[in-house]
Amino acid sequence: MADWLAALDRRADLRAKAGLTRRLHARAADETVTDLAGNDYLGLATHPEVTAAAARALSAYGLGATGSRLVRGSTDAHHALEDALADWIGTDRALVFSSGYLANLGALRALVQPRTLLVSDAHNHASLIDGCRISGAETVVTPHADVTAVADALAAAPGRPAVVVTESIFSVDGDLAPLARLHAVARRHGALLLVDDAHALGVTGPGGAGAVAAAGLAGEPDVVVTATLSKALGGAGGLVAGPAEFVRHLVETGRTFIFDTALPPAVAAGVHTAVGLARAGDHLRAELAERAARAVARLAAAGLTVSAPDAGVISVTAPGPEAATAWAADCRDRGVAVGCFRPPSTPDTRSRLRLTVNAGVPRADFERALEVIVEVAP
Amino acid sequence: MADWLAALDRRADLRAKAGLTRRLHARAADETVTDLAGNDYLGLATHPEVTAAAARALSAYGLGATGSRLVRGSTDAHHALEDALADWIGTDRALVFSSGYLANLGALRALVQPRTLLVSDAHNHASLIDGCRISGAETVVTPHADVTAVADALAAAPGRPAVVVTESIFSVDGDLAPLARLHAVARRHGALLLVDDAHALGVTGPGGAGAVAAAGLAGEPDVVVTATLSKALGGAGGLVAGPAEFVRHLVETGRTFIFDTALPPAVAAGVHTAVGLARAGDHLRAELAERAARAVARLAAAGLTVSAPDAGVISVTAPGPEAATAWAADCRDRGVAVGCFRPPSTPDTRSRLRLTVNAGVPRADFERALEVIVEVAP
Repeated sequence: MADWLAALDRRADLRAKAGLTRRLHARAADETVTDLAGNDYLGLATHPEVTAAAARALSAYGLGATGSRLVRGSTDAHHALEDALADWIGTDRALVFSSGYLANLGALRALVQPRTLLVSDAHNHASLIDGCRISGAETVVTPHADVTAVADALAAAPGRPAVVVTESIFSVDGDLAPLARLHAVARRHGALLLVDDAHALGVTGPGGAGAVAAAGLAGEPDVVVTATLSKALGGAGGLVAGPAEFVRHLVETGRTFIFDTALPPAVAAGVHTAVGLARAGDHLRAELAERAARAVARLAAAGLTVSAPDAGVISVTAPGPEAATAWAADCRDRGVAVGCFRPPSTPDTRSRLRLTVNAGVPRADFERALEVIVEVAP
Repeated sequence: MADWLAALDRRADLRAKAGLTRRLHARAADETVTDLAGNDYLGLATHPEVTAAAARALSAYGLGATGSRLVRGSTDAHHALEDALADWIGTDRALVFSSGYLANLGALRALVQPRTLLVSDAHNHASLIDGCRISGAETVVTPHADVTAVADALAAAPGRPAVVVTESIFSVDGDLAPLARLHAVARRHGALLLVDDAHALGVTGPGGAGAVAAAGLAGEPDVVVTATLSKALGGAGGLVAGPAEFVRHLVETGRTFIFDTALPPAVAAGVHTAVGLARAGDHLRAELAERAARAVARLAAAGLTVSAPDAGVISVTAPGPEAATAWAADCRDRGVAVGCFRPPSTPDTRSRLRLTVNAGVPRADFERALEVIVEVAP
């Protein structure tokens, strides 16, 4: 009976030997670290208008939503946020979930009918992979950003309902999926397109409306958008946006929507304010793009292997998992927070630092952080 | 291509004809409805100390956690909450997730090894059912609260790793699982026991430590506890509590932990304060138990079929789904919020009102609400 704990210890030892131990590091409210690790791309998590809106709703509604959306958890704050999100993204309707993970699980299951084929990009996020799995549908994983492979997979299943599943800005390497071409291929075969716009919403597109909007696809009847409220919008939660019929279907049948406590109203209210700031944030997006280019130039000049970012995510190759861990730890010791991505959290066998650009970080701190990364590079 | 939307409309029409339409009703911050629908059992969601703690953390940390727990999302507020939860529940450690749904998905997958058999109660919550499904393990569903059936299922799989999966207080009918007997059976067969204590934490057990603690099982090495922070604790999020080795395993391998944005620090801080209030809340639990008994007595005296509640959840049978919907709507029109549970959200074919006791509701309003339920009963 205690065997299972000993077995877990042995597995932890194996991970440690492979350099794959993961440890939680708590940050204090008054830390002085420069953030190149989080997803607060526009610096809105600490924006005074965002926290003030959340504080007002906290005072008005209390802390929790006290129930699922259908039973007790829907407040005016949720509905106002959903209207604002749909208007921004350019879809009929939007529906808020308590996390992006649950939004993806809910959307994928709701898109699947008997005999549906899912065609999923090899670099997709864990929540999309789990969504494919939990839907029970047959899933073909296609090579990363390979439109021809997607077309072949659809052509091989004539007459079957199908959904092409992709991120827009991929979370590890920061590259943009070929959305317009994926949509053209999907439509040619009568398939739907699901795009997880988590790392693009607020960062790219007209008024920050995301990569799906940038590709002109947001209002299309065969496109469903998912995203998080926890990245450029600085809050928490997830969303599904698309045709009204699909959102209604989710409300009435989506298990991860129905059987889950609603997002706290204070979070909904804070994110609603963040949507307004993000829409008006062209200056923040310009700053972000400029910094991303600057980071790539500086790190490449130092001889590092750097991805070509399409938004705020930059991947820097490390020699291996131990080196990546040590690199990230050295950065942290010198006051710079960076992401450390190692297998199995990377879509290939490469370990890397993942840098994210936060337009709210003082420019001098950002520049200094780049120097630290270079100085302590393995 | 537009076929799929027409198909969704046809399915919505079928649900409407069966009386199974679900609609979102937004509540305003200043609503005057009496709550017999939410899960804020102790009234802590609006407790001034809870909202004040959340407001302080909102000001100190900002709105969102800005990243996953391992990358950027762990704050002092999360770690302090986890220490407080483990101390309260009586386990080695506790780990906070962004929702109870994701806690259950993560815990179940992490408990499964090759050849594991899951033995799952027929009344288990959707998140447990989905956790069994996503784990990929063979799952035997046993009749509700049937210890002999669990023993038979374990006996039929000798030598295989196994996990018995149950809620403590079941979410629809409010009855308590036979935890001590389930644990004895599990241990006899070398199986583990996973208990979702969502509706019991804060409501039952010594100092409100939950039904697992009440059964003397919380620190046992073969028991894992999951729960939500969104019910008696008045906030949002979920938790997994158990042996340190298991929590470490979750931190290092749990997909719904690793690949998900952390709970907002303000929610963690507010819930931490709620833990202290719940531990000291014997008077609230006495009030809740007294009201539950009062509700059953009043409704039964009116000729209604009422469950025998073991905590704060009461089920009242309705003649059918349309009648349940109309009953709930009539209550709402008269200022009383009740839950309306119809298939497929019920573990059987029965529709019912689900009433939940909130010890924070003024007593006179609670009494009036019972009269309304009786007066508008079908």
